[in-house]
Amino acid sequence: MLDAWLRQPVCAPDESAIAAAQARQGVLTKPPGALGRLEELAVELAGLQRRVRPRLERIRIVVFAADHGVAAEGVSAFPQAVTVEMIRNFSRGGAAISVLARALGATLEVVDVGAAGTLEALPGVVSRRVASGSANFCRQAAMSAEQLREALAAGREAIERALHEGVDLFIGGEMGIANTTVATAVACAVLHLDPALVAGAGTGLDAAAIGHKAEVVRRALARHREELEDPLDILRCVGGFEIAALTGAYIAAAQAGVPVLVDGFITTAAALMAVQINPSVRPWLLFSHHSAERGHGRLLAALEAYPLLSLGLRLGEGSGAATALPLLQMACRLHDEMATFAEAGVSDK
Amino acid sequence: MLDAWLRQPVCAPDESAIAAAQARQGVLTKPPGALGRLEELAVELAGLQRRVRPRLERIRIVVFAADHGVAAEGVSAFPQAVTVEMIRNFSRGGAAISVLARALGATLEVVDVGAAGTLEALPGVVSRRVASGSANFCRQAAMSAEQLREALAAGREAIERALHEGVDLFIGGEMGIANTTVATAVACAVLHLDPALVAGAGTGLDAAAIGHKAEVVRRALARHREELEDPLDILRCVGGFEIAALTGAYIAAAQAGVPVLVDGFITTAAALMAVQINPSVRPWLLFSHHSAERGHGRLLAALEAYPLLSLGLRLGEGSGAATALPLLQMACRLHDEMATFAEAGVSDK
Repeated sequence: MLDAWLRQPVCAPDESAIAAAQARQGVLTKPPGALGRLEELAVELAGLQRRVRPRLERIRIVVFAADHGVAAEGVSAFPQAVTVEMIRNFSRGGAAISVLARALGATLEVVDVGAAGTLEALPGVVSRRVASGSANFCRQAAMSAEQLREALAAGREAIERALHEGVDLFIGGEMGIANTTVATAVACAVLHLDPALVAGAGTGLDAAAIGHKAEVVRRALARHREELEDPLDILRCVGGFEIAALTGAYIAAAQAGVPVLVDGFITTAAALMAVQINPSVRPWLLFSHHSAERGHGRLLAALEAYPLLSLGLRLGEGSGAATALPLLQMACRLHDEMATFAEAGVSDK
Repeated sequence: MLDAWLRQPVCAPDESAIAAAQARQGVLTKPPGALGRLEELAVELAGLQRRVRPRLERIRIVVFAADHGVAAEGVSAFPQAVTVEMIRNFSRGGAAISVLARALGATLEVVDVGAAGTLEALPGVVSRRVASGSANFCRQAAMSAEQLREALAAGREAIERALHEGVDLFIGGEMGIANTTVATAVACAVLHLDPALVAGAGTGLDAAAIGHKAEVVRRALARHREELEDPLDILRCVGGFEIAALTGAYIAAAQAGVPVLVDGFITTAAALMAVQINPSVRPWLLFSHHSAERGHGRLLAALEAYPLLSLGLRLGEGSGAATALPLLQMACRLHDEMATFAEAGVSDK
């Protein structure tokens, strides 16, 4: 089977590290529970990193970029040329995720999994092109089975590179004109939702354009309805290269024991696919923010995910996850560095 | 008038800096509005700092510590000795706010405005003692007019020290056994609320103890009801030294043009007093988080404040504000460092 690696089981969180981390939280100089979700995060990360005091120093951000044939249906406020233009902007350090990666001291890699048009070699950009954009899924499957395999592998390979450099946490991002339409199609196919409930403004559509976008997704789902039973078939028929790569990256990260911080709507769709393909991935996914994109709440609910932030972000690129990262880092620092009641000579209750 | 400085007017935010910052947000390489509240924060800070590109590098955290006579009524889960023990813990770097200040590269000062018992000289702790704890406000006014004046001045002096070192943003924190009871009394007096709607678990009371705490506040408000018209009289009758110091610090920060990031329940009560005394302070107050303490939401609503985080925090010390600070810093970095569409050669809509 071509994709056997995807279903390789993932380790469960380490219960003894969780118990020890919980015990430590109970003796730090604060009322029990007073640090709320910061305490929970430290304990959760202890279980994933299999150490009582987890650390989040080596952060890897990978932005997967691709184009989508469905852009021809007029579903985006921006022209398709923006995908390659933004890859150049990532490389030169001018995009939001570039700024955030610098601010966080994280390493940023951009993987071109299939932007339309040609792209020169650029610093920080890995060329792993499956094709010059996917096919228009209103007319045919978005990609072939072989292309899907390649896109999933592009995600796994990005994790392998991260592991080579050392990584405490992985953030996946995405860029691709029309990819909220693709994520909507994938999410509706897997959750059996009406596209009108999920299709949103993306980069800035008005109500009429959102209605058109929902109709485009509805047509695509009708065309492929015989083939949308299996999550891999859903990715092949109505997915996209960057969403498939993210799916592969999330599975590979979990298999390698690397916690994942999921970003917004599109990455959550990929996370949903990863969990559909391999349910043992779920504990490795932490969720950063509830985005302003209409369908995101439904995807989060399907994953029983409770993100940390809700700041009206809807940019993608991994920017929401990067914005939330300091919360996780501070949770780890507090857990590691606070004095216990005994150490500090502070009276307990 | 002893407290004339409190009512000195504060500059309004700079409308031209706001307009220029908004214009800049509109040409950065992202869909307009896609960074949600991070865009709003950058624009708001531009108005306060009177510069198109605000910066948040020099962060000053001051924790005001004091004790409260009302602790004798059995309103806290912890003994009063914890206040001085925690001051030592702040000084030695073991408290949550110590860890966060280190992680953020912020300077941390602790001001003893009146802890009970004696305290040796400690690094990083300024002794500005008004008394060895306030009086039990169930029996008499919490402090004299002169003590109130001293406590308010202790806050102003902390801002003066911060200005001397240079400061882009001020975070106030507090420590003091029984100070959620004091904040409840202050908030109920100024907003005319039933203490049962505001009294909460503090450091970990059960339902019966919370009921007792509300009853203690109700008794205090009844005893002083003839004198609770003016906000300064409220602080004198049912306030505390650290809450008065925070009130003075917030007013002085705004007067000096320094934005403030407010922490949780107790600091929000102080912020409410600051705005009651001097309404022109309000635009200078940014709100970091919605704490788990029961009454916090009502105080935030009274201030029309929409905090950034809601993570179930209820520690105080300034810890929630410190936790939210990176969001403001990233908002400024994005605003300053992102490329414009023209600079990056990216197609606009």
